[in-house]
Amino acid sequence: MKPEELERLNQSPFMKACRRLPAPHTPVWLLRQAGRYMAEYREVRAKVSFLELCKTPELAAEVTVTAARRLGVDAAIIFSDILVVLEPLGMELEFTKGEGPVLHNPIREAADVQPLREVVAAESLGFVFDAIRLTRRELPGHLPLIGFSGAPFTLAAYAIEGGSSRNFDLTKAFMYRHPGAWGDLMGKLSRAVAEYLNGQIAAGAQAVQLFDSWVGCLSPSDYREYVFPYTSQIIRQLKPGVPVLHFGVGTGMLLEVMREAGGDVIGLDFHVELDEAWRRLDGVAVQGNLDPVCLLAEREFVLRRARRVLDQAGGRPGHIFNLGHGVLPPTTVDNVIALVEYVHEQSARPSRG
Amino acid sequence: MKPEELERLNQSPFMKACRRLPAPHTPVWLLRQAGRYMAEYREVRAKVSFLELCKTPELAAEVTVTAARRLGVDAAIIFSDILVVLEPLGMELEFTKGEGPVLHNPIREAADVQPLREVVAAESLGFVFDAIRLTRRELPGHLPLIGFSGAPFTLAAYAIEGGSSRNFDLTKAFMYRHPGAWGDLMGKLSRAVAEYLNGQIAAGAQAVQLFDSWVGCLSPSDYREYVFPYTSQIIRQLKPGVPVLHFGVGTGMLLEVMREAGGDVIGLDFHVELDEAWRRLDGVAVQGNLDPVCLLAEREFVLRRARRVLDQAGGRPGHIFNLGHGVLPPTTVDNVIALVEYVHEQSARPSRG
Repeated sequence: MKPEELERLNQSPFMKACRRLPAPHTPVWLLRQAGRYMAEYREVRAKVSFLELCKTPELAAEVTVTAARRLGVDAAIIFSDILVVLEPLGMELEFTKGEGPVLHNPIREAADVQPLREVVAAESLGFVFDAIRLTRRELPGHLPLIGFSGAPFTLAAYAIEGGSSRNFDLTKAFMYRHPGAWGDLMGKLSRAVAEYLNGQIAAGAQAVQLFDSWVGCLSPSDYREYVFPYTSQIIRQLKPGVPVLHFGVGTGMLLEVMREAGGDVIGLDFHVELDEAWRRLDGVAVQGNLDPVCLLAEREFVLRRARRVLDQAGGRPGHIFNLGHGVLPPTTVDNVIALVEYVHEQSARPSRG
Repeated sequence: MKPEELERLNQSPFMKACRRLPAPHTPVWLLRQAGRYMAEYREVRAKVSFLELCKTPELAAEVTVTAARRLGVDAAIIFSDILVVLEPLGMELEFTKGEGPVLHNPIREAADVQPLREVVAAESLGFVFDAIRLTRRELPGHLPLIGFSGAPFTLAAYAIEGGSSRNFDLTKAFMYRHPGAWGDLMGKLSRAVAEYLNGQIAAGAQAVQLFDSWVGCLSPSDYREYVFPYTSQIIRQLKPGVPVLHFGVGTGMLLEVMREAGGDVIGLDFHVELDEAWRRLDGVAVQGNLDPVCLLAEREFVLRRARRVLDQAGGRPGHIFNLGHGVLPPTTVDNVIALVEYVHEQSARPSRG
């Protein structure tokens, strides 16, 4: 990328907010902004499976760019899935209709960890890097592109449960009963994720988000013992200067220890009040946290709730407006566009001079 | 009950802890202590369905008393389900194999609320009162019996979702979109629950627990707006002097507002550290909070984690040892018995005089 292009991206509201610098307006993007709620996305998905879409750089780039343009958001996030990094380890990943991700060879015994392969991202995850390169070319020059991966705990949880779970009992039982194998598994996952995210940065991502989506099933002391060493190691290994966003659901009790593990921006879910959470997180930027269910209500209700989030952020530099979890399929695109416009309009600051 | 019997119950470690009075040892009982993990329970269940078991006072009393005796715990909890109070409102409740509770006529539109009937507990829930009377007769005279019900939010959530849910999107969407119907629904549920719990107290329960199991899906401000008025009203309407235990899962962010809604004892789940949570809850007793998954590990690990909970409680009067959620089916009874013995032994205080 040319220096003037880089500089333009660096001056964008999103990148400024990641660094807690004042911006002309509060930047906004939405978790799962390219998704089933959008007709353009459903059209592409009618032709290919979810995993094929992830693995076809042209299509992944298309849905990424279409969503960002259509919504008028301040950042794009590469279309992919938090779990694609599990495949090259040897996990058999499938997305089944209705049930979501399934791992056909779940890790259940300590002995299941050793056969997992070390990931060479350039060989096995090149389709994501290609998608990022293509997207970067097609995106408006001022619009940052976010890369991402599942964080090791969440990846381990899917690998052990064999799919989604409500309480992650198998994962925690494995962790408590086989601390050695847990360490080996988390070590392999951490090396894979660090290399994978650095590859995304090299391919053209301006920031990366670690989704530790299900880490909220742990207590703070379990987080510190079983997760912290690995997540903090990944974050230390990422290319310096690239903002890291660190997010999970149900992490109200974990905010301090997650911040300590790392990240320039802590993603807040909808269980917390943004003002109170940000007070506890002094020294980092925050992202969040409108409840995506609000978008299913009337326009007026959506905007009232958005106003509350903006009020709680208080106009301080370092707030990135987002949802507290992904856009839900029954959401109307009109509500999302109205939300983005509202955030821009209500947070606009008169430029100096 | 004779005055000397009542006095004996009032002097039990459990009742003392509810009132934050010193007790000879930390009382312990376990959420779902009568359940599938226990052979004696499975034997009874082989003969009747789950709902038949709830509705047959002799059998409900049998599994209640058997579990309490076998484990050596400091309180029994009447065998029942948090959802039985939904049936007399007109909800068609079934427990399906594997899937758990199903409501066949879920509430989806505002208009679905009006036809729900007002509950006359003595007419429709007499089987629970009978079970309590029978249990009280068969239980050792020093052992308190806990009655319980689902709290209105959790009941509404099941009624709207039609069963279990992960994110309670339908419930929250209903709440946001139909505030009037939500108020009507919560009002009916609150009146039913208050009458139902007072009936259990009249039948012989020494304490009652409100299970607001899924309220943790809400933010503190949503709790205050959509739940607080109803839960606090119920608690105010209960017979004075009878300890109220107030519990939910994933409530780390809601502890203060739940305490404000009411309860002598706040139940803590496994997502919080007990010491920190109790500091935030000054002025009430606490119950919890060993992660039930710990019981799936080796004995030594279980006791180490139990030690941590006791250390966090610091021997202060007003701690009732419990799990942070229900006993899991693969748990071994031996581990549970070892846990109960360990808590008794480690918390024993030399009697004065």
